[in-house]
Amino acid sequence: MVEDVRPGPAESPEKPLSLKARLFDISTGIDIVVLNEDEAHEHDLFAADRVRVEHEGKELVCILDLSSTLVRRGEIGLFLDSSQALGTKRDEAVFVRHAVPPHSIELIRKKMDGSYLNEKEVNTIVGELMDNQLSEVELASLMTSFYIRGLNSDETVSLTKAIVNSGDTLKLDEHPIVDKHCTGGVAGNRTTMVLVPIIAAAGLYIPKTSSRSITSASGTADTMEVLANVTFELEEMRRIVRKTHGCVVWGGAMNLASADDLLIRIRHPLRLDPMGVMVASVLAKKKSVGAEYVVIDIPVGRGAKIESMDAANELARMFIDISGRLGMKSEVFITYGRDPVGEGIGPALECRDVLNALQGKGPADLTEKSCKLAGAVLELCGKVEAGKGYDVAMGLLGSGKAYEKMLQIIEEQGGNPKVKVDDLPIGQYRYEVKAEADGRIHLVDNKIVNRLARAAGAPKLKGSGMLLHVESGDKVKKGQPLFELISESETKLSNALDLLKTVQPIEFEKVILGKMGETGIFEWKPKEA
Amino acid sequence: MVEDVRPGPAESPEKPLSLKARLFDISTGIDIVVLNEDEAHEHDLFAADRVRVEHEGKELVCILDLSSTLVRRGEIGLFLDSSQALGTKRDEAVFVRHAVPPHSIELIRKKMDGSYLNEKEVNTIVGELMDNQLSEVELASLMTSFYIRGLNSDETVSLTKAIVNSGDTLKLDEHPIVDKHCTGGVAGNRTTMVLVPIIAAAGLYIPKTSSRSITSASGTADTMEVLANVTFELEEMRRIVRKTHGCVVWGGAMNLASADDLLIRIRHPLRLDPMGVMVASVLAKKKSVGAEYVVIDIPVGRGAKIESMDAANELARMFIDISGRLGMKSEVFITYGRDPVGEGIGPALECRDVLNALQGKGPADLTEKSCKLAGAVLELCGKVEAGKGYDVAMGLLGSGKAYEKMLQIIEEQGGNPKVKVDDLPIGQYRYEVKAEADGRIHLVDNKIVNRLARAAGAPKLKGSGMLLHVESGDKVKKGQPLFELISESETKLSNALDLLKTVQPIEFEKVILGKMGETGIFEWKPKEA
Repeated sequence: MVEDVRPGPAESPEKPLSLKARLFDISTGIDIVVLNEDEAHEHDLFAADRVRVEHEGKELVCILDLSSTLVRRGEIGLFLDSSQALGTKRDEAVFVRHAVPPHSIELIRKKMDGSYLNEKEVNTIVGELMDNQLSEVELASLMTSFYIRGLNSDETVSLTKAIVNSGDTLKLDEHPIVDKHCTGGVAGNRTTMVLVPIIAAAGLYIPKTSSRSITSASGTADTMEVLANVTFELEEMRRIVRKTHGCVVWGGAMNLASADDLLIRIRHPLRLDPMGVMVASVLAKKKSVGAEYVVIDIPVGRGAKIESMDAANELARMFIDISGRLGMKSEVFITYGRDPVGEGIGPALECRDVLNALQGKGPADLTEKSCKLAGAVLELCGKVEAGKGYDVAMGLLGSGKAYEKMLQIIEEQGGNPKVKVDDLPIGQYRYEVKAEADGRIHLVDNKIVNRLARAAGAPKLKGSGMLLHVESGDKVKKGQPLFELISESETKLSNALDLLKTVQPIEFEKVILGKMGETGIFEWKPKEA
Repeated sequence: MVEDVRPGPAESPEKPLSLKARLFDISTGIDIVVLNEDEAHEHDLFAADRVRVEHEGKELVCILDLSSTLVRRGEIGLFLDSSQALGTKRDEAVFVRHAVPPHSIELIRKKMDGSYLNEKEVNTIVGELMDNQLSEVELASLMTSFYIRGLNSDETVSLTKAIVNSGDTLKLDEHPIVDKHCTGGVAGNRTTMVLVPIIAAAGLYIPKTSSRSITSASGTADTMEVLANVTFELEEMRRIVRKTHGCVVWGGAMNLASADDLLIRIRHPLRLDPMGVMVASVLAKKKSVGAEYVVIDIPVGRGAKIESMDAANELARMFIDISGRLGMKSEVFITYGRDPVGEGIGPALECRDVLNALQGKGPADLTEKSCKLAGAVLELCGKVEAGKGYDVAMGLLGSGKAYEKMLQIIEEQGGNPKVKVDDLPIGQYRYEVKAEADGRIHLVDNKIVNRLARAAGAPKLKGSGMLLHVESGDKVKKGQPLFELISESETKLSNALDLLKTVQPIEFEKVILGKMGETGIFEWKPKEA
């Protein structure tokens, strides 16, 4: 690395700049102040430098932005976050001086140069991240370095621990505590909501936190929300789990593994997910709820989060290694991720699949996958002897115990324990697409299914989404229903239909279903609505 | 790289969102708009996505920011740059739809993954950079990838060409055209202003563009500005060079190698200067003025930009290789960069050294270094036979021809051709620091000298800075003057004195000059002012 000649980072003994506050009614999420460019340069202050900003005894470290037009000499521009933190009003005096830059800058360079970071160094970075001391540029550089250089086992363990320590942890005296995770990307994949009641009915403890959808048609938390409340404080979650042995709540409502949310802020815009960071992020959430046994599902296939077997194998090895070093016993399943799971896509439609599965009449793929994973959990913690897990899980479904347990969890989470499949609020606006010719289904595209369901209103409109009538490998006849678009809103359904003109959720193996029109757009021409 | 499952980047056929403009009186330098978070997510729009924003027939691609508080549903927040570009007024209707993300994102990933970029790909990145299409996060990731993966020779050539093509170029029919460059970091190093008139007097053409100081006490453009105007259009520069054979003007005033300024925007906050990018940046400037022969000075030493011989050698090899491939013949000198050059630090004080040197009475180090480099230029282009360059350069100094040439250049640049050293505006507020004991000078610290001179007012106050009376290796007696702080402003001098209490611009080899006080601050205790 080539150093530039800017003045040293030490706190300057020079008199602080005294400036008059100008307030900008904008929240920036990170503390930024704006100075006049010329004035700043005269005081050896440069863009992206850290400054200590002081107002009536309160102090804040901010990142410096410069402008030659917006802020005059003698003025300082404060954004909403900073002016509120300092309690500064317009035209009040604010003092500015150099601040020591965060230690992370040196550590990011160290990582960039190919060194590994020790536990203390990783803690420093996560600590400064939690204190909002790192700019987006610095975080982008860190993530890029993590991606290119990779994280070794020690670094991943350190990062996981640091993320755990950045938030609260669930303390349960009951044992064994188990958990499951899915890396995601498969539409309708609601195994969690089938697995949790099976595991709880078997007498294990499963304090399951789930996420809401960001880009998919529904997250487990969105789907569970159709049946019950999912937003709880940590203490409430503890009460529910102690009583029912399980729960399905929204992780984002609690302060578990807080640093992870901040790391995601950068991973998302860059679409960059260094494997070590991903593993740390997942395992920190498991460790935060005290899990001792963890089963991980990695769906592989086009459209899933992990698209190649090589990547899946590497990720699996890392999960096993790191969870072991954190005192958790784990097992990883690489699963078929090319097709959506179940029939419904969207919160209420997925709930229908889940409730059906729990009553032994659900979609076969959802039932089988959930019981395989539940069986693995039962075997992993020694509750059931090896090879018997799946049968025990199926037995808990068949006996109705898992269903009863689900109703108990729903009740404890403030939902209606008498809920019936037919009560679920499914949208009234529907559009069925049928096969235009005979053929065999080659692929049901997860990404496009998600887009269509979102266009129809999912996950916000709980009863919106899609109902899939076929899966890949199925032979279909001309006129046979392929899928339905469903929405609670007529406008949203029409949006989804507009989108349908340009995308192809289902690919056939051989038969041509439409043709390229003059506009270059694939024409579906479904014949009836 | 692990892909996330967000919807595809294709432009959406969905109806555009119709929103009411809310204006924020803030310039962001890059086109950013703010949408309500919930509303955006419902339309598959996520933070850092690109959107096409349309208003009354005008269209702009912007980066999306989300807020749950600042912008209500149905509103769009526009910053100054975007609202001006679109001509949007408050409450007017604005339409938003998905935009195709810049191609650079895929190319940055490619670089991240260890591939090399071809010429077309480098052009794409520089083109999108010039169109303000890349966010700071993406640029940070690009620079980090360039730094870690390195740029190979082809990539560096492509980048140099792309930077050249991003701006204007100087067209001169006269030959030979020569240039010189210094990588920087050494205080008072004004060899350019001595070398240019020597070269011009020898009959070569040297269209020299220089920079202003960012972090040092003065840039060559700041120093030359004491004697003449330095801000010219390209055509004016051409006229001056054709007439006098040389010039010393501010490069920032012209549109040469424009992309470089945008790249520096990211290199500075990260203090990250990937070698290939640095070489491309320097050579693009040389190529832009049509240089055929280039001499490069790499000062090495603590406080200089390049601190190790290894780095200097690698950089030198790269300069030779890349300039050759761009059709320029070059020679690189690695020079002693541990000490400031000349006596004066700060614009007017440096001018005094330069004018003295041109009259054969200048500081020995400045004269010698300038003539060595000028001699190398003369030999490189075949004007003077090998081994004779230095003598010829010294001869042009001794005969007064270089001095005359300098006066002619000053006149053509609108300055006073009768300028005398004693006319130079040197600050009246002075503070002399003397040795407290006998000893030998170990080091004069470039970075601290720069900081002190800036605290005293340089480069803004032209007559402010420092005068150095010693250099490393000198033996000094107790009471002998070491240096003077000089300022046009009493307040600024007092700022510099405050700073002086905490820093040590001159290190002695053995003798203790002060002691650590109770406050832990090094006390200088100079005895007289």
